[in-house]
Amino acid sequence: MYLIVLIGLCRRSLAELMFLSAPFAMLQGKRVLALEFETYEVMALKEMKKIAEQAFEKWPLQKILIDHRTGRLHVGEIAVIIAVAAAHRDAAFQACRYIIDTLKQTVPIWKKETFEDGEVWVAAHA
Amino acid sequence: MYLIVLIGLCRRSLAELMFLSAPFAMLQGKRVLALEFETYEVMALKEMKKIAEQAFEKWPLQKILIDHRTGRLHVGEIAVIIAVAAAHRDAAFQACRYIIDTLKQTVPIWKKETFEDGEVWVAAHA
Repeated sequence: MYLIVLIGLCRRSLAELMFLSAPFAMLQGKRVLALEFETYEVMALKEMKKIAEQAFEKWPLQKILIDHRTGRLHVGEIAVIIAVAAAHRDAAFQACRYIIDTLKQTVPIWKKETFEDGEVWVAAHA
Repeated sequence: MYLIVLIGLCRRSLAELMFLSAPFAMLQGKRVLALEFETYEVMALKEMKKIAEQAFEKWPLQKILIDHRTGRLHVGEIAVIIAVAAAHRDAAFQACRYIIDTLKQTVPIWKKETFEDGEVWVAAHA
């Protein structure tokens, strides 16, 4: 399942920036076999929408996409996508960075890491 | 024709950042009908390779892609692509920004803008 928040409409973008994040294949020397993201969906979508709205207030943007996978992922799969379109690259870079940093601080998503010798639940973006 | 410089190999990226740039559809109130990029190709590729090597020295990166279209483009077509892969997003953001800023300063590419009432050659990234 995907969580997708798309706000705004691209009219005349000069600069588009896309950030992709995939889970690490190794953690503390142990091979990660799989990951599972769990979220409190209503709150997560509300927070993601708030982040997008804040970014629109701070910078002259045309389009924002915030996408966070939930459920089970294999190593190498993309977990997070942030895309931003703007007339100028300054705004695109600043907004994209703000969105990913804020998402990792505020959106309630947890991650279960499966190793060869067991599993552990952690905050998704600790 | 594409100019493509690809250095490095993605081993284990956590963060990937892709910057896309497309020409403006309007300039000083006049509609741009088409654009043409011209380059001194040997020098452009040499400069692009130098920028990629500098970025690899400055940040722990895994992969860099620098792509600049040349020849005739229609409005809305992507002119520049910069893609960077790294283990951490800090490096990805800083390097991607460095690459596009430096490319616009140093790579010898010129742009012809075609309007309804004529044409003009300018530095591609003035």
